[in-house]
Amino acid sequence: MIIVMKQGAAPTEIEAVVNRVEELGYKVHLSRGEARTIVGIIGADDYLLNQDTFEVLDGVEKTVRIMQPYKLASRDFSGAASEIPVGPNAVIGGKKIVVMAGPCSVESREQILETAHAIKEAGATVLRGGAFKPRSSPYSFQGLGEEGLKFLAEAREQTGLPIITEVMSSDDIELIGEYTDIFQVGARNNQNYSLLKALGKTNKPVFLKRGISGTIQELLMGAEYILSGGNMQVMVCERGIRTYETSTRNTFDINAIPLLKGLTHLPVVADPAHGTGQWELVGPVAKAAVAAGADALMIEVHPNPSKAWSDGAQSLTPERFGQLMAELKPIAEAVGRGI
Amino acid sequence: MIIVMKQGAAPTEIEAVVNRVEELGYKVHLSRGEARTIVGIIGADDYLLNQDTFEVLDGVEKTVRIMQPYKLASRDFSGAASEIPVGPNAVIGGKKIVVMAGPCSVESREQILETAHAIKEAGATVLRGGAFKPRSSPYSFQGLGEEGLKFLAEAREQTGLPIITEVMSSDDIELIGEYTDIFQVGARNNQNYSLLKALGKTNKPVFLKRGISGTIQELLMGAEYILSGGNMQVMVCERGIRTYETSTRNTFDINAIPLLKGLTHLPVVADPAHGTGQWELVGPVAKAAVAAGADALMIEVHPNPSKAWSDGAQSLTPERFGQLMAELKPIAEAVGRGI
Amino acid sequence: MIIVMKQGAAPTEIEAVVNRVEELGYKVHLSRGEARTIVGIIGADDYLLNQDTFEVLDGVEKTVRIMQPYKLASRDFSGAASEIPVGPNAVIGGKKIVVMAGPCSVESREQILETAHAIKEAGATVLRGGAFKPRSSPYSFQGLGEEGLKFLAEAREQTGLPIITEVMSSDDIELIGEYTDIFQVGARNNQNYSLLKALGKTNKPVFLKRGISGTIQELLMGAEYILSGGNMQVMVCERGIRTYETSTRNTFDINAIPLLKGLTHLPVVADPAHGTGQWELVGPVAKAAVAAGADALMIEVHPNPSKAWSDGAQSLTPERFGQLMAELKPIAEAVGRGI
Amino acid sequence: MIIVMKQGAAPTEIEAVVNRVEELGYKVHLSRGEARTIVGIIGADDYLLNQDTFEVLDGVEKTVRIMQPYKLASRDFSGAASEIPVGPNAVIGGKKIVVMAGPCSVESREQILETAHAIKEAGATVLRGGAFKPRSSPYSFQGLGEEGLKFLAEAREQTGLPIITEVMSSDDIELIGEYTDIFQVGARNNQNYSLLKALGKTNKPVFLKRGISGTIQELLMGAEYILSGGNMQVMVCERGIRTYETSTRNTFDINAIPLLKGLTHLPVVADPAHGTGQWELVGPVAKAAVAAGADALMIEVHPNPSKAWSDGAQSLTPERFGQLMAELKPIAEAVGRGI
Repeated sequence: MIIVMKQGAAPTEIEAVVNRVEELGYKVHLSRGEARTIVGIIGADDYLLNQDTFEVLDGVEKTVRIMQPYKLASRDFSGAASEIPVGPNAVIGGKKIVVMAGPCSVESREQILETAHAIKEAGATVLRGGAFKPRSSPYSFQGLGEEGLKFLAEAREQTGLPIITEVMSSDDIELIGEYTDIFQVGARNNQNYSLLKALGKTNKPVFLKRGISGTIQELLMGAEYILSGGNMQVMVCERGIRTYETSTRNTFDINAIPLLKGLTHLPVVADPAHGTGQWELVGPVAKAAVAAGADALMIEVHPNPSKAWSDGAQSLTPERFGQLMAELKPIAEAVGRGI
Repeated sequence: MIIVMKQGAAPTEIEAVVNRVEELGYKVHLSRGEARTIVGIIGADDYLLNQDTFEVLDGVEKTVRIMQPYKLASRDFSGAASEIPVGPNAVIGGKKIVVMAGPCSVESREQILETAHAIKEAGATVLRGGAFKPRSSPYSFQGLGEEGLKFLAEAREQTGLPIITEVMSSDDIELIGEYTDIFQVGARNNQNYSLLKALGKTNKPVFLKRGISGTIQELLMGAEYILSGGNMQVMVCERGIRTYETSTRNTFDINAIPLLKGLTHLPVVADPAHGTGQWELVGPVAKAAVAAGADALMIEVHPNPSKAWSDGAQSLTPERFGQLMAELKPIAEAVGRGI
Repeated sequence: MIIVMKQGAAPTEIEAVVNRVEELGYKVHLSRGEARTIVGIIGADDYLLNQDTFEVLDGVEKTVRIMQPYKLASRDFSGAASEIPVGPNAVIGGKKIVVMAGPCSVESREQILETAHAIKEAGATVLRGGAFKPRSSPYSFQGLGEEGLKFLAEAREQTGLPIITEVMSSDDIELIGEYTDIFQVGARNNQNYSLLKALGKTNKPVFLKRGISGTIQELLMGAEYILSGGNMQVMVCERGIRTYETSTRNTFDINAIPLLKGLTHLPVVADPAHGTGQWELVGPVAKAAVAAGADALMIEVHPNPSKAWSDGAQSLTPERFGQLMAELKPIAEAVGRGI
Repeated sequence: MIIVMKQGAAPTEIEAVVNRVEELGYKVHLSRGEARTIVGIIGADDYLLNQDTFEVLDGVEKTVRIMQPYKLASRDFSGAASEIPVGPNAVIGGKKIVVMAGPCSVESREQILETAHAIKEAGATVLRGGAFKPRSSPYSFQGLGEEGLKFLAEAREQTGLPIITEVMSSDDIELIGEYTDIFQVGARNNQNYSLLKALGKTNKPVFLKRGISGTIQELLMGAEYILSGGNMQVMVCERGIRTYETSTRNTFDINAIPLLKGLTHLPVVADPAHGTGQWELVGPVAKAAVAAGADALMIEVHPNPSKAWSDGAQSLTPERFGQLMAELKPIAEAVGRGI
């Protein structure tokens, strides 16, 4: 961390800053320039420091963080890319791109079974479906709850596909953990630290979505919460961010894919359905994500989108999904991957 | 809701949309123009409809919501402004502007007692302090927990000031409810629906902050979750939004104050500390919020900001807080209020 | 356009709105619902109307535009994709993806000639280079001016590559027009209407960048300014937008590529250098743009980025550019294009 | 500027950075920490350096600017607040808050004369009105041009009020300069450097609006362009920024007012009409701006907003404007100003 003193800061003010740094057990690097004095802290534990601690001291103009505030999630911590095996066939972060597909919400036994068979046939290797749904209106369908989990489990039994479903509260971890193969944390819970801490104590993979307007750093700090709890099976997901542009539901941040691959060893998943909000755009953006280096995709598929209870507008039909899988293949190969 | 058909939509497509609307029990208003056909639904229960339901139908270009998706939170529901009495002396939403003050975190018995007496003397009528803290780093101080609640309760006993403290998880509602007068929901939990639903079942006032990049509509939908659970004592808080501007921690959305006063009957609180992130800006923005019509202010005050365990850079000393209270008085009077 | 009346709008207010619409020569579609009355205008010339005209009338709650405010730029106007031939070999919007490459600024005769030969060898078909530079600081290098244009022309002569260079002011159109094959309008001038109008009177292709935080609609309205002046050779460029995310210079809006392909017949170009700001991300995002359907790429290439006078951090060396061209080939083929 | 080296940067890489800094004539402050080495440049001319220059060097992770990139606009340059006299009675930046009022566009002789008399009576001291209009659609009214300037001049003659009007292109400076007292640069031209440079050569006050999504720093860099040309009469204007929030036209950045007052000696103007887009919000936000320390206000006033050719929805009637002026008085006095 760099502490920049104000122009004309008094020697006693500089001294006070130096003392505070040393009091906290860090070594000081002092640089006195013509215009400013700067106080550097370049120890390996910089990530443990709070900028606030110094910004309130007299004579300090601002502080600048030099190192990332996360450690376990960083590429420095583990040079090698992490691989997370799920079910008998899928390895998230491996050479083959994993496709997770299924409806936004589990609506009925028939719906989820039909979808599971269809996506399996098209080449997906993980089944998704929400049983506990975070809905922006209290008057909207809130999910089937445990009944939905049972339908998902039945679909797994029939198809062999591992399942992923969302957990919204630490209260529900035990119940959902009895059924799911991967815990999904939604964008609205990216900073629900009670939930993240509790997931750090589980031993199942966690799929962590970026917040609705979360930064890359916040995404990795969310992962750090889980990792520091002891659960090293975390994957992070780019799902579009909130911007001023209203012609799409979100702005899919394609930059985040290669950037995350450089910053972290965790697998990176792309969610083009939420990233765009329009099924016509899901295909092109899914292809873009693979071209940019994503390790996995999450795609919403519904047997009859116009009757979907949620997110119909961004769901593919099984036919369209099958076609997309075919189109993704040469892209994956062009970047040295399979699908 | 207005459903706009694509240019050249087929008669059968239009018919299918009309049928779907009627199937859901709504009355259709059909307008055939030169360029487009539009299907209008103008019933009173528009807020219960999902736009997705229609956007996936063939021939539909887009849908436009005509009415707000909330009902209990709307000004239409209750023409009169709601007043929420707290403790013996404060009425949030009444003629007098209520000032809630105190440290970001409860750090020790001495710190909270000293602050409580100081802010009382300066004219504050509610004491704030966090015992359970949502921190962006798992390595940062996470709050004193129940011990902090006990210190807050002792401060209330000594000063008579009612207290407000944050609840991060539905798990903690019972414990925190034993101590606090007002439940605070932080920006990161604005869409933690499990928590909001559980708070709807309590009978204590809830202070709901706008999400870090939450819209006005989402803020009111969060309130709707609590209101629809049966708890009508909700106040909403503007605390700055995330924008591209990096010279301040957040951008305080001053427009939101008068806009919310027009849209909802709920009291509107302003939090200039989080809205700016810099104590030098807290005073001017607090004054601005009062001038724009805020019903209450939340101000971070710490006896020694440079030793604060969190948010020191945006906290006022008791002296500066006292001076601000004096400066706020003529502004409050200029807009027909007291403080 | 839909005009939504307030709940309880008086009959005389509704009548006044209807009269105003008819006064302007439009036909009214009136829908009276339980909760609201809405006044629809669905004529083909909706795009000529101002929302303001109606929003100020008494009893009006809001207006909603049904049709896009542009006409000549829309896909409806010209179903077929426009193709813009440039130089002897490049057709922008054709089957082959066109790559425009070169330095941010023309710095010297040697620099531009060396770069031109290198990019030609790697497969680029248009040479870019700035002679008039919009710099955020008045103390930064502002471009070589006409001397730079002469160096570009010499590079064209030697390599046969057509050239593209930026025009910042209508004053410079004549001079730059004597040299360039394509006029480039930068992000900061996307709404410089004096400049856009003047370019509408020229007969050379115009490359129009999206504004720094421009919407898709504003980008197409900028194009409409040029098109309505009579110049139909316009291509639009996604170059990243300003968001709250600070870990990249801009957020490349990959959604914009397929969205624009659906909304307009104009060719769509991607600029991954400005879209990311970091040369390590240029390759992955360039591949993503091609996978998502871009018609052309603009890539910054500099023989020695560390000595570049501007934008060095996002420039590729000729070697890296050559490698990227090779990597783009299979992606282009995977989406049915060549390069 | 601080140059942060990558973890494990080679000694030769560090040396190369040091050499580059010294080559440019700056003195190096080297700090070798456990985790990183940082290279500091703390000379007074830091603002002349480009971050790019160093970011492209091998082994460099990132650079951080320590000092602001502007000089003439900074508070350090001139400790005292600048005052700009306009006309016989107004001093922008003085103790009295200056109110500039008038219609968005000059539409006719009658309209501007009627408005001028009305705003004068209500206490405004500068008349605004656009004759050259930047309109987002080429099909919208583009302003009366010189005829509009003549009407403005006649209004000045009749009322004694100095006038302010927008200049969109350096081509028009001479013509507009013959009539106007203040040149207004609109949000879309905040980075039109050709225009800013040309205005730096004039000797009339310039009113510079913040860009549609301009940062505070960009606003001051725009001012620096004018100041460095020799024209020291510049005032800067907060007019709302583009954010994700769609319930208002822009988000008025109230933080910017006290922040700018701290960063620059230039007078700070607030434009609540563009900052909100809704006339109902103009009053509360105007009061907020004054409470937060604005030196001047720009308010759109139209004798008949529902017939306005532009910006009607955010314009006040003369009656409402008169009432607002009365309400602003006690607020101005509460912050030690007059109006």
